[in-house]
Amino acid sequence: MAYQAPVDDIMHALKTAAGLDSLVAQGVLDGVDEDTIRAVIEEAGKFGAEVLEPLSTPGDRTGSKLVDGKVVTPPGWKEAYKQFSEGGWGALPCPTEFGGQNLPQVVATAAGEIWNAANLSFGLCPLLTQGAIDALEAQGSEELKRTYLPKMVTGEWTGTMNLTEPHAGSDLGVLKARAERKADGTYRIFGTKIFITYGDHEMTDNIVHLVLARLPDAPPGTRGISLFVVPKYLVNKDGSLGARNDVVCAGLEHKLGIHASPTCVMKYGEKDGAIGWLVGEENRGLNVMFIMMNAARLAVGVQGVAVAERATQRAIAYAKERRQGRTAASKGAEMAPIIEHADIRRNLMTMRALTQAARAICLVTARETDVSRRAKDAGQRAAAANRVALLTPIAKAFSTDIGCEVASIGIQVHGGMGFIEETGAAQIYRDARILPIYEGTNGIQAIDLVTRKLPLEGGKVVEGYIAELKQTVDEVRASNRPEFGRMAERLGETVAALAEASRWIGGALMKNPDAALAGAAPYLRLFGLAAGGVYLARGALAAVRNGSGAQMQPIALARFFAENLATAATGLKETVIGGADSTLALGPDALSA
Amino acid sequence: MAYQAPVDDIMHALKTAAGLDSLVAQGVLDGVDEDTIRAVIEEAGKFGAEVLEPLSTPGDRTGSKLVDGKVVTPPGWKEAYKQFSEGGWGALPCPTEFGGQNLPQVVATAAGEIWNAANLSFGLCPLLTQGAIDALEAQGSEELKRTYLPKMVTGEWTGTMNLTEPHAGSDLGVLKARAERKADGTYRIFGTKIFITYGDHEMTDNIVHLVLARLPDAPPGTRGISLFVVPKYLVNKDGSLGARNDVVCAGLEHKLGIHASPTCVMKYGEKDGAIGWLVGEENRGLNVMFIMMNAARLAVGVQGVAVAERATQRAIAYAKERRQGRTAASKGAEMAPIIEHADIRRNLMTMRALTQAARAICLVTARETDVSRRAKDAGQRAAAANRVALLTPIAKAFSTDIGCEVASIGIQVHGGMGFIEETGAAQIYRDARILPIYEGTNGIQAIDLVTRKLPLEGGKVVEGYIAELKQTVDEVRASNRPEFGRMAERLGETVAALAEASRWIGGALMKNPDAALAGAAPYLRLFGLAAGGVYLARGALAAVRNGSGAQMQPIALARFFAENLATAATGLKETVIGGADSTLALGPDALSA
Repeated sequence: MAYQAPVDDIMHALKTAAGLDSLVAQGVLDGVDEDTIRAVIEEAGKFGAEVLEPLSTPGDRTGSKLVDGKVVTPPGWKEAYKQFSEGGWGALPCPTEFGGQNLPQVVATAAGEIWNAANLSFGLCPLLTQGAIDALEAQGSEELKRTYLPKMVTGEWTGTMNLTEPHAGSDLGVLKARAERKADGTYRIFGTKIFITYGDHEMTDNIVHLVLARLPDAPPGTRGISLFVVPKYLVNKDGSLGARNDVVCAGLEHKLGIHASPTCVMKYGEKDGAIGWLVGEENRGLNVMFIMMNAARLAVGVQGVAVAERATQRAIAYAKERRQGRTAASKGAEMAPIIEHADIRRNLMTMRALTQAARAICLVTARETDVSRRAKDAGQRAAAANRVALLTPIAKAFSTDIGCEVASIGIQVHGGMGFIEETGAAQIYRDARILPIYEGTNGIQAIDLVTRKLPLEGGKVVEGYIAELKQTVDEVRASNRPEFGRMAERLGETVAALAEASRWIGGALMKNPDAALAGAAPYLRLFGLAAGGVYLARGALAAVRNGSGAQMQPIALARFFAENLATAATGLKETVIGGADSTLALGPDALSA
Repeated sequence: MAYQAPVDDIMHALKTAAGLDSLVAQGVLDGVDEDTIRAVIEEAGKFGAEVLEPLSTPGDRTGSKLVDGKVVTPPGWKEAYKQFSEGGWGALPCPTEFGGQNLPQVVATAAGEIWNAANLSFGLCPLLTQGAIDALEAQGSEELKRTYLPKMVTGEWTGTMNLTEPHAGSDLGVLKARAERKADGTYRIFGTKIFITYGDHEMTDNIVHLVLARLPDAPPGTRGISLFVVPKYLVNKDGSLGARNDVVCAGLEHKLGIHASPTCVMKYGEKDGAIGWLVGEENRGLNVMFIMMNAARLAVGVQGVAVAERATQRAIAYAKERRQGRTAASKGAEMAPIIEHADIRRNLMTMRALTQAARAICLVTARETDVSRRAKDAGQRAAAANRVALLTPIAKAFSTDIGCEVASIGIQVHGGMGFIEETGAAQIYRDARILPIYEGTNGIQAIDLVTRKLPLEGGKVVEGYIAELKQTVDEVRASNRPEFGRMAERLGETVAALAEASRWIGGALMKNPDAALAGAAPYLRLFGLAAGGVYLARGALAAVRNGSGAQMQPIALARFFAENLATAATGLKETVIGGADSTLALGPDALSA
C-alpha cells in the first residue's frame, strides 16, 4: 500500500514530547507557529507520497550503476531531485542569507522522516548535503560560504562527506589521504575514500565533496586531520563552472540494501592532485566533522523512525486484508483478518509503540537543537546543547535498532509473503540494516554515550535529564487514571533502573573502563526505553487532559510500551551492572577457539 | 572464512545437555556409541566444509531458475547432490529395511546442522525429503513404501511437501486442491500449490510430491483433508520410470534469501489430473502431515542453529583480523584487533551463547525423539513423546529467532563491510529470515505451545520439565563455585519466572484465551531462555567436574548467558502476565487509524 505521512502522529509527538507550545510561546521558533509547522509537514507528506515513494521499489530493482565512469541513478531520480530542490525542500532549516527558509530543526526533522520513509535511498542525498552545509556554515571562510552555500542550500549542488578509508572506519585517526599545500593557498588532495554516499551522480551540475586528509607535517592521530572542500567541477570567480577536478568514482559497492543510493569508491588525485580548499584550521578537521556528524547522527536516527513507520503501515494494511484462521470473535465459517489475532496485535502494537517512541526521542533532540541555536538566553542555549549531546547517540542508535526490529516484525506479519521481494516488506528489511552501521556504528554510539556524554558537567547533565523523566512518572502516578493500567509502576521501575545503571557506569568508568564499555550497548537500550516510555506517557497525559475519545491511541500505545516493552528495563540494568565480568571472561584466543 | 563444523561444541551439547552417556548406557541407541557418533559428525563436517560450503555463495548469486518449464539449479548443485546421496548422508536416520543406516535422531540432527550451516539452500532439499519419508513410513501402504522409500532413502529421488495455497497458509482448513476417486483405486489431483521447496529440479530422475487435497464429499475444514503421493514420473511395476505425471512447476518466487533453493508454484491437473495415491485414510491427511511437520519443525529449528553458527564463525574470524582503534591493553601506536574491544566481545559472546543454547535445545529434542522411538519401556517412550511435543515449538521458534538475531549481530560486527554482499554476512542475514516463517510461523509455534502443549496431561508435562530445570539450578547453587558468578541466582529467577508465567497462562487459557495468546510469543521466548540457560549450566557443571582448564569456555558461556541474556526473563514474565490488556486494548480499527 502507498505511504501516507503520519502527520497526526508527528504533530502529537511534537506537542506532547517536544513541548512545541512552550517553544512557540517563548519565541524560540522566531514566529513559526503550530499551524505553519503542520502545513509544511502536510505538504512534505504529499511530496513524499506522490513523488518520492513511487520511485522507491523501482529504484531498488534498477539500482544506481557505474557506466563509463559516471554514476547513473535509476529512472526518474533526476527529475524527482529537481522537483525536490525547486520545491525548496532541501533548504528548510538553512539560513535565509544563503537562500534557505530558516525553519526550525523540528520541522526539518519531521520532513526528513517523510523523505526517508517514502524513499530511503533518495533521502540520503539531501541528508548528506545538509551535513556538508552545516560544516561549511560553521567553519568555512566567507569566500567558501559565498561560493558554495547558495548552490547547496537550494539543492542545485549536492554535498558529500568523505571520511572512511579501507583501513580507517570507526578509527579516523589512522586515515592516510594526504593534502599538499600550494603557494596560492589551495591544497592538492590524494587518496582513496570508500563508502561515499552519492559520491557521484548526474542529478546536479556539481558535487561538493568534504574530504578529510592529512598534511605532510601533521601530528599523528586524530589531531592531525584537516578538512577540505573539493568540488567535482572547479568554480570560476563568476560562479560558473570550470574544469573537472581530479576526483573520480572508481567503483560502486554491491550492497544488501539502499540499491539506488550510489555508495562510491572515490579516488582523489589520480593525476596531479584534486584541488581543495581548507575548511576551518589545519589539523582541526575532525572538530568540524563532528559538527556535521552530530546533526547527521540525528538524521540517521530519523531514518530509523522512517523505516519503522513504513514497515508498520505496510504490515497493518496487510493484516487488515489477509484472512486466515478464526478468533473467538469470528462468526460463521469466514476466516478472520489476521489483525484480529492476538499474536498479530502484539506485533502491530510493538511496531507502533517502538516507532512512536523513537520518533519522540528524535523530535525532542531536534527541539533541543533549536533551543541551543535560537534561545535568547545563553545559559538556556548551553543547557540545550548539552541535552543534544546526551540524546544524540540515543536518537541514533535506539531509533535505528528499533528500525531493524520493526522491519523484521513487518516481514513476520506478512508470513510467507514477507519473504517474497515483490511484497515490499523485504526491501525495508534490507534497506534498514545499514542504519545501525553508518554515521558511527551503534556500538560507537553506546561508547560515546558512556564515555563522553555521561561525564558531561560531572554527570549533572544526565542526572538532570533523569530527574525530568522521573517527574513525568510521578505525574502519571498522581493522575491515578484506571486506563493507565500499570504504566506508572512499570515506568517508575524503568527510570529507577536507568538511574541505578547510570550511577554504576559512572563509578565503573573510573575504576574499570572495560567493564563500563561492556555494558554500554545494553545501557543505551535501557536509556532509550526509559526516554521513549516517558515521552509516550507525556502523550497519554495530554490525551487524558484533552479528554477526547478519539485520542485513546496515545494512551493505549503508552500503556502498551510500559507494560510490554519497558518491562525489559530491570533485566537490562542487571546486565549492565552484573554482566561485565562474564562478558570479558574469555580472552580473544579462548573466545575464538 | 571457510566453515568448520563445530564438532566439539556439538559433542559437548550432546553429552552434557542431551545426556548421551545415559542413552548409550540404557541401550536406547541400539549399540551406537559416542565414538561412532563423533566419527560420523566429523565426516559430515568434512563433507559440509569441502563439498557444500563452496557452493553456497555462488548459489546465492546464480539462484535457481525456471528455464523452458524446468527448474535449473546452480552449477555444481547436481554433482554435489549426487555425492551427498552416494555418501549415504540422506539415509542416516532411515530404517535399514529401505536402505537407511538407522542412526539415532541425535546424529541426524547434528548432521543437519552441518549441511545447513554449510549451505542452507542445499540443506533444504534433504530436509524436505526426510519429511516425506517420515510420512510415507508412518502411514503409507506397504506397496507405497516398497515403491518409493528405497529410492527416497538413498536419495535417488527427492520428496516435497505440498500444503500451502495462496489463500491457505497457516490455516490449512480452507485449502481447495481437490482429489477425485478413480475406479482403479488411484485419484486425480487438481489445484495450485505455492511455496513448494524443490518442487522441481533436475538433480534426480524423479520427485515424490506429497500433496494435501480435498475429496468431493469431504467434510469442511481440517477434518476433510487427505494426503496423496503424486510422483513427477509414474513408476512402473518393475520400478522403472513411466510417463510424466500431470504436474508442472509454473513459476519460481523471487525471494529475499535462499536464492538457490527453488520455491515453486506447482500446478496439478492442468490436463487430465495428476495421478495420486492415498497415504493413510481419506480425510485424515492432516494427521499424517503433522507427523512430518513435527520432525520438520525440529529440522528448521536446527537450521536456525546452523545460520547462527555460520554467522558466529564469520564474525569471530573478521573480529580477529580487522584492526581499529585501541583498548586499554593496546601497546604503542598499533590498532587493536576489534575482538579486543569490550563491545565487540559482548556481541561475539552473545552470538556464541545463543547459538550453543539453541543447539542444546534442538539436540535435547532429538534425544527425546530417540527415546520416544527406541526405548524398550512403553511408559518411557510415551513420556519422551510428550517431551518432544512440548519442546518442538521452542526448538523451532527460539532457535530460528536467535538465528536471525545472531545473523544481524554478525553484520554489525563487520561494520560497513557487513552491508556489502561480497563479505558474506549479508547472505546469512537474508537467508536466515525465512526460518521464523516456514513450517508454521513462530507466532503459530507460540500458539501451539500455549494452547496444545501446556495442557498436555493436564499440565503435568510442563510441570515435570520445569522441575527438572529447577533441579539443575539447585545443583549450580549447591556447587558454590566462584567461577559461576551469579549463575545460580539469575537462572533461579529465570526458571521461577517460567513457572509463574506457565501457571498464569494455564489459568488464562480457561478464562480469557485471547489474553493467553497475547502473551504466547514472549512466553515462548522466556521458555527458550530458561531451557537454554539451564542446558548451558549443565555444560558448565560437567566442565567443572572434569576440572580441565581447556573447558573454561562452557563455564564462561553459561555464566554469560545467565548474567547477560537470561536477565530478560523477569521482564518477559511481567509482559506475559501483565501485558495482555494493553496489547488488546485497541481494536483493529483504532489500531490501524
